[in-house]
Amino acid sequence: MTDKIKIGLDAMGGDKAPVSIVEGAILASRDRKADYEVVLVGDRGRIQRELERLGISSAPPFEIVHASEVINMDEPAAEAARKKKDSSLAVGLRMEKEGKIDGFVSGGNTGAVMATALLTLGHLQGVDRPAIASYFPTEKGVAVVLDVGANADCKARNLYEFAVMGSIYTSYILKRENPRVGLLSIGEESTKGNELTLVSYRLLSESKLNFMGNVEGHDVLKGTCDVVVCDGFVGNIMLKFAESIESFFYFLIKEELRRSILFRTGAFLLKYPLRSMRKALNYAEYGGAPLLGVDGVCIICHGKSSPKAIKNAIKLASRMVREKVNEHIKEGLKDSNQLEGEK
Amino acid sequence: MTDKIKIGLDAMGGDKAPVSIVEGAILASRDRKADYEVVLVGDRGRIQRELERLGISSAPPFEIVHASEVINMDEPAAEAARKKKDSSLAVGLRMEKEGKIDGFVSGGNTGAVMATALLTLGHLQGVDRPAIASYFPTEKGVAVVLDVGANADCKARNLYEFAVMGSIYTSYILKRENPRVGLLSIGEESTKGNELTLVSYRLLSESKLNFMGNVEGHDVLKGTCDVVVCDGFVGNIMLKFAESIESFFYFLIKEELRRSILFRTGAFLLKYPLRSMRKALNYAEYGGAPLLGVDGVCIICHGKSSPKAIKNAIKLASRMVREKVNEHIKEGLKDSNQLEGEK
Repeated sequence: MTDKIKIGLDAMGGDKAPVSIVEGAILASRDRKADYEVVLVGDRGRIQRELERLGISSAPPFEIVHASEVINMDEPAAEAARKKKDSSLAVGLRMEKEGKIDGFVSGGNTGAVMATALLTLGHLQGVDRPAIASYFPTEKGVAVVLDVGANADCKARNLYEFAVMGSIYTSYILKRENPRVGLLSIGEESTKGNELTLVSYRLLSESKLNFMGNVEGHDVLKGTCDVVVCDGFVGNIMLKFAESIESFFYFLIKEELRRSILFRTGAFLLKYPLRSMRKALNYAEYGGAPLLGVDGVCIICHGKSSPKAIKNAIKLASRMVREKVNEHIKEGLKDSNQLEGEK
Repeated sequence: MTDKIKIGLDAMGGDKAPVSIVEGAILASRDRKADYEVVLVGDRGRIQRELERLGISSAPPFEIVHASEVINMDEPAAEAARKKKDSSLAVGLRMEKEGKIDGFVSGGNTGAVMATALLTLGHLQGVDRPAIASYFPTEKGVAVVLDVGANADCKARNLYEFAVMGSIYTSYILKRENPRVGLLSIGEESTKGNELTLVSYRLLSESKLNFMGNVEGHDVLKGTCDVVVCDGFVGNIMLKFAESIESFFYFLIKEELRRSILFRTGAFLLKYPLRSMRKALNYAEYGGAPLLGVDGVCIICHGKSSPKAIKNAIKLASRMVREKVNEHIKEGLKDSNQLEGEK
């Protein structure tokens, strides 16, 4: 069974790590259909204690690799990435670079995961700027939106790369043929947008992608396209806005409950649509957000990820390895050499 | 009663104009508490036919000013503003410039309203770039977000002006003392953001505004601040995303109804929280979005505005005149001369 894919998991990354993470590792390892092995990276003592708390005293169903340092959730990212050479993050990503594991999953400090991955794995050949891709719920299944936070300022060339990476990810992982790519902007016409999107529009029109032009803010949830391309500033604001809708809705319902007795008697029925909404809006459900464009597989999870989300992230990492997503991206970006010198 | 404020209303601006608009003009004029008079500007024949359809054959409760041309909702905005000198929009805004009316309301082509207002009324003294301000629902009442679409590319100086204008609007119209101003960005720390917000952060920190620093996408609905400042690209995308939430939620409910019989029997109870959500998310409820920074009062309504929304927009225009919002903005921007030469 040595040809099994090995996925490293950062035991120390997450709001309450290693709680939930160790449990996620167990869930993932015990999955009968698993075509991967989990390698848990982190403080061996704390992992051991968490295993005991979960009632697993004998051999756990995964390998443990010790790492002595921990990067905190609010630590300055670039500095932590540079200085903490023995953090679980650094150790895990180094193992991936050395080929000891095939992919890595972390729910830690997003900035630190990104910086360490860039530093350790490096850029994928042909990629100028890696991007974080996130799933958004839509009326037609999920859409992939990128970048959602890796690059606050972008050039048109970067948006083109995001489009290629998102399109390839969507065809191989979501199994959609010839994914429809939309450029997030503020008007449908090619002449509408900001300086960045106007140039990007031209690059995308001339590409081999299934580019459907500009899409607007209201097109995302409607599912007008499979891949939504934007800079990391806009993408991050839209993602966090979307994540906040659920609690805003609960706020509205609480207000309503205070006002209406009739409503109170039937309130339990609300749990059904709210559950679907929670599921649709909670991107942790999907497992995590891939950092596309680094020379390796790296999935970034939410700091509050449930064990199930951790398991899903491990499965996603394993699928990305198996589907050779990075090979396809390299291939897809070969054409883009013509873009050298573009704004 | 000649000291009554006169508000012009574009009869031809809106998806089904003059339907809804004429009705809104009647609603507004018949309001017993009205401290304004309505002047309806547009094609006299079509207005007359709409009045007849509404059963008003004798004298309508407002003045009608004829304008022979109509700007369509999808017409190229800048061209229409330049060429159609006898559009209802151009005629109305010219009347405002000449002091025959005190404010103007239009639910027409947003780009054309903006372009014509800039061309006809000009910039308010001290303002480099006017901005459209929109209300967003929050857990603590509405917040004012600007710019939501007038400026796709901004300089820090513009964001500073938006902050001053939004802050003054919020104190005089929403009657909030010392409004909390937040800069929309992708991290709370002053070092997080894009090139634009990093410089803007410094300008805002040094100002006399009640600046609370960066706010993120999830802070908007939470009501972390009263005024959210951003460039018109990000603001427009967030606004349109927010507007699309309601129909996405109806989609989720329909899916749920298909699946669950139990849910179906209690579905009518859902109308209560959904009604509050619709109200909270539908910015037409608030009447319209003021174009701040032009030398006059101009309210932009949604093309789908109901008669009630039109009435509310007229009331808002009248309040802006009465509260002398523009005078206060000029005063507030006097300090900003020190910004000359800033990026």
